[in-house]
Amino acid sequence: MKVLILFGSPNDQTIMKKAKDLLDQFGVHNESYAISAHRAPELLAEVLQKKEDEGFEIIIAGAGLAAHLPGVVASKTALPVIGVPLNGALEGLDALLSIVQMPKEIPVATVGINNSFNAAMLAVEILSIKYPELKEKLKAYRETMKETIRKNNAMEVMYS
Amino acid sequence: MKVLILFGSPNDQTIMKKAKDLLDQFGVHNESYAISAHRAPELLAEVLQKKEDEGFEIIIAGAGLAAHLPGVVASKTALPVIGVPLNGALEGLDALLSIVQMPKEIPVATVGINNSFNAAMLAVEILSIKYPELKEKLKAYRETMKETIRKNNAMEVMYS
Amino acid sequence: MKVLILFGSPNDQTIMKKAKDLLDQFGVHNESYAISAHRAPELLAEVLQKKEDEGFEIIIAGAGLAAHLPGVVASKTALPVIGVPLNGALEGLDALLSIVQMPKEIPVATVGINNSFNAAMLAVEILSIKYPELKEKLKAYRETMKETIRKNNAMEVMYS
Amino acid sequence: MKVLILFGSPNDQTIMKKAKDLLDQFGVHNESYAISAHRAPELLAEVLQKKEDEGFEIIIAGAGLAAHLPGVVASKTALPVIGVPLNGALEGLDALLSIVQMPKEIPVATVGINNSFNAAMLAVEILSIKYPELKEKLKAYRETMKETIRKNNAMEVMYS
Amino acid sequence: MKVLILFGSPNDQTIMKKAKDLLDQFGVHNESYAISAHRAPELLAEVLQKKEDEGFEIIIAGAGLAAHLPGVVASKTALPVIGVPLNGALEGLDALLSIVQMPKEIPVATVGINNSFNAAMLAVEILSIKYPELKEKLKAYRETMKETIRKNNAMEVMYS
Amino acid sequence: MKVLILFGSPNDQTIMKKAKDLLDQFGVHNESYAISAHRAPELLAEVLQKKEDEGFEIIIAGAGLAAHLPGVVASKTALPVIGVPLNGALEGLDALLSIVQMPKEIPVATVGINNSFNAAMLAVEILSIKYPELKEKLKAYRETMKETIRKNNAMEVMYS
Amino acid sequence: MKVLILFGSPNDQTIMKKAKDLLDQFGVHNESYAISAHRAPELLAEVLQKKEDEGFEIIIAGAGLAAHLPGVVASKTALPVIGVPLNGALEGLDALLSIVQMPKEIPVATVGINNSFNAAMLAVEILSIKYPELKEKLKAYRETMKETIRKNNAMEVMYS
Amino acid sequence: MKVLILFGSPNDQTIMKKAKDLLDQFGVHNESYAISAHRAPELLAEVLQKKEDEGFEIIIAGAGLAAHLPGVVASKTALPVIGVPLNGALEGLDALLSIVQMPKEIPVATVGINNSFNAAMLAVEILSIKYPELKEKLKAYRETMKETIRKNNAMEVMYS
Repeated sequence: MKVLILFGSPNDQTIMKKAKDLLDQFGVHNESYAISAHRAPELLAEVLQKKEDEGFEIIIAGAGLAAHLPGVVASKTALPVIGVPLNGALEGLDALLSIVQMPKEIPVATVGINNSFNAAMLAVEILSIKYPELKEKLKAYRETMKETIRKNNAMEVMYS
Repeated sequence: MKVLILFGSPNDQTIMKKAKDLLDQFGVHNESYAISAHRAPELLAEVLQKKEDEGFEIIIAGAGLAAHLPGVVASKTALPVIGVPLNGALEGLDALLSIVQMPKEIPVATVGINNSFNAAMLAVEILSIKYPELKEKLKAYRETMKETIRKNNAMEVMYS
Repeated sequence: MKVLILFGSPNDQTIMKKAKDLLDQFGVHNESYAISAHRAPELLAEVLQKKEDEGFEIIIAGAGLAAHLPGVVASKTALPVIGVPLNGALEGLDALLSIVQMPKEIPVATVGINNSFNAAMLAVEILSIKYPELKEKLKAYRETMKETIRKNNAMEVMYS
Repeated sequence: MKVLILFGSPNDQTIMKKAKDLLDQFGVHNESYAISAHRAPELLAEVLQKKEDEGFEIIIAGAGLAAHLPGVVASKTALPVIGVPLNGALEGLDALLSIVQMPKEIPVATVGINNSFNAAMLAVEILSIKYPELKEKLKAYRETMKETIRKNNAMEVMYS
Repeated sequence: MKVLILFGSPNDQTIMKKAKDLLDQFGVHNESYAISAHRAPELLAEVLQKKEDEGFEIIIAGAGLAAHLPGVVASKTALPVIGVPLNGALEGLDALLSIVQMPKEIPVATVGINNSFNAAMLAVEILSIKYPELKEKLKAYRETMKETIRKNNAMEVMYS
Repeated sequence: MKVLILFGSPNDQTIMKKAKDLLDQFGVHNESYAISAHRAPELLAEVLQKKEDEGFEIIIAGAGLAAHLPGVVASKTALPVIGVPLNGALEGLDALLSIVQMPKEIPVATVGINNSFNAAMLAVEILSIKYPELKEKLKAYRETMKETIRKNNAMEVMYS
Repeated sequence: MKVLILFGSPNDQTIMKKAKDLLDQFGVHNESYAISAHRAPELLAEVLQKKEDEGFEIIIAGAGLAAHLPGVVASKTALPVIGVPLNGALEGLDALLSIVQMPKEIPVATVGINNSFNAAMLAVEILSIKYPELKEKLKAYRETMKETIRKNNAMEVMYS
Repeated sequence: MKVLILFGSPNDQTIMKKAKDLLDQFGVHNESYAISAHRAPELLAEVLQKKEDEGFEIIIAGAGLAAHLPGVVASKTALPVIGVPLNGALEGLDALLSIVQMPKEIPVATVGINNSFNAAMLAVEILSIKYPELKEKLKAYRETMKETIRKNNAMEVMYS
């Protein structure tokens, strides 16, 4: 179980770390690289090829503005690519549209603006199709989540 | 390899058929149901449970307007859910935001507006992680796609 | 006279408290619960059923992002549901569209972004159709409001 | 049980008729008037006063562009006002924002763009709080709706 | 030369004061009132009638959110109404559309978001058609403005 | 009483003719010129200067896309400029923002998208400050408008 | 003087032909290729390298939806890249933002939605810096344009 | 090699300085002027004429709100004009549309919101067509950029 996390600029690591942390929590091996699709396309291609050869199975790619990174990655691999629009301008609407509106045949699985946590959660869901032990962890995670809410929120809110 | 295709209204079947056709082309078993998350939530829950028990592995859900179907499905299963925003008003922007902006912990893998074809392609990519024979077909598909473009488009456009 | 106030996350209570306070001011019994439609759909269904059985007459539901809570509630009850879009991203435009653009047959009465106060005021207006004593209070409230403005604002503004 | 339907221009009657038809179906007395809030404010005030005196309990108001009609009506009565944004330009976004973003203390219960059907459905839900016989009809309506979907849509879609 | 300045809430006075200050600078008599079109429509009508009787010639009206004030004023008078969209939410886009998209026959002369200064400048331009002495002042103002820019900005910028 | 009507392209004349027709109806002398601010800035300046010398008092300017014409005109004259955003792309939102968001000191009185009729109505309102006979016509026009609505619309709509 | 014209799909050739025609009119050698950045990235890289070696000096790239083509090209060459957003959805707003919001260091010179004509005009302006004979043609073109407008539009519009 | 930098207000110099700094780094002579297209159109025309006579080859123009400066400059010269939309309101969307949506025949090469750095980079790319020594510097710059990324980012991110 190996997930590659990519983002365009070292500045994005604060937000993208939430993806790494959730993958770690599920015991999914992951590696992160900060490589711009526009400023270093050759390096990006090399790292992608190397990681695909090493057996990475999913790629999470976060980018802002004219956020081409997820789409460029998707053009170079047939692995599933999960795109995270980052808010760099226009409340992130530019990044969202640049990622989600991919043309026919080259999809990017897009999650919410700045929602790198959900990118990792989606990766876990996808890997759970193949790995039964991960599926068990995921089910337990969802049960715990529901139980926590039931324990904390089943009673009336006392406004603080 | 089983993919469930859901959409909110029988009117959506013209667009959603592109998903079915691509899955058929890849030999992925699929079934489609037109069940509104808002008008028939109990039926939706029953069908979902039944299909999950039958071993379906991915759910594609298309919806327009306040497009809750993909998110409601994602709240009821830990299978990966792929959301297709359908253009019912506002050029489909309402559906896009209603699907992609899911809260923490319950992701929906969103594709472009009306782009049901890409939802199926993404499903194939995801299933290819587990099924080597599908991965081979996917690689062949992408090779053919590239070869076709190379054959047809590598020469200068003669405007018609 | 009983109004149920729901919201997706405990973090929303600061904004939603304005609804509770206005209902208290009008002597309308109300209870608040913080239950995510996506993370705890079963608990939500239970609480909804219980409260409907207890005679609650209106439901106010606040949510942000892909704000499905009001619509999911409306799919499970025929009581009037008032939706409050909360600003979690995109200035709240995502929540507004996710709430207001409900499909045919399952309406949500939507108020302005973050405007939980108006949700409660609308609930009071609705209950006033049935309860004459509340109608009197509402009329008095509107009269006082107008008199206050007349007293304070009928004279020229002296800029401070 | 009396509902007043207002709209700004005679041209809006094609869309607004869906509200009238649903109210008729539920046996709710209703009357419609086409009176612009901007071009005939005095006539609007007269009709409003007269109908409130006659015991009308809810007002549905549809308007396009800078859609002030619902808000102007809400400023003149404490009855619940349901606003229907009509698409006259900008896909109806101007009308939606002009109706839903009402200031504190004067709410308008807003439904989806051009969705006059849902305005009537919401009116029925609201009146059902007071009128038990209407509540029964509404429950029956929702049951029928669900049964119809169950009958027609519980089986797999055979694409035409 | 008399200009009436209206705005919906006392909170708007910080922004609207720029209109008053420019009118003062041009020696145009002006009075300001903070009266909500929605919360005090009768008082608004009274003040409007009184001021029109006193010979006021132009009305500047600032409002935010579902900014109906300028349009409501325009429906009650044939004097020119200048609308100032105030940023209360959605960066002021809601107020802009609520003011500028007036229906046929009842125009509002709309200026930029929060740009009360330009509302006053427009009022001065309009009054200058009738009052030659104001026209002279306006010409002098524009000359001074151009000369100031020529003096300060005709040379290369030395970045600080 | 002289109003100059400008627009950027001969194609705009269908929409702009509504302004001319209303001015004709009020007996306001008007002339129209189709001169692009971008393609013929010198000719535009000449015509503007000539018409200002001839005593024109208001300028109506319609433009689409990056609609600079009204602002460019406003930069060259202190006469009131009324801007009409024309829908050439993006539903006219580009033209609206390009016209209404003028910087401090150089206002453009903006009306609704494609609403050239209202531009002429606003011009009549402005000229009525100076010309008593026009003010009488305007009052009569508004009375007739209200009476027509009262006659036609004071009774219940019988849906056709 | 050589300009390369690229676009993502053969369907775009109707719009992009306007660029070719203007370049032909100015005697600028040009070649067009329809190569998707996502479906055939290797072919795109080959053609780009070949054409850069052949001395092409400017690249015009048109694309719709998540319009990555211009940015991907800009990442692979230091030649000036002119981007044309094509309207494939959302009125072309997705393509505009995907093209214009490029990150620091890798610019794309963006023109208006569907405005391939202007892309060619911009290319001519750019090449005119280097080629005096083209500069002469460009000056003549602009003079002719202005003279044509002066001849046709300097007189009052007689509405047809 | 001479580039003229223009912007509408002295307040814009903080952002526009990034353009100047990059041009300095490449040894491209540049001069900056803060002249509003609306408040000082004659001075703008004079400076433009003077600088064109002095042999300036490209103009960078930054502006916010109804950002007419780049378009007005483009209407007066056949030199390439690079437009920088500045965020003054609405997240800069108004400026972007006012600059990029230029009509046929008068293009403005638009870069991203507030991205004056890229305007300068684009100017360097354009001048490199003519000046071989600049082309060398540009190639070296891009190589260094790629090498820096390769050195710093080719290894896995260790989140701080």
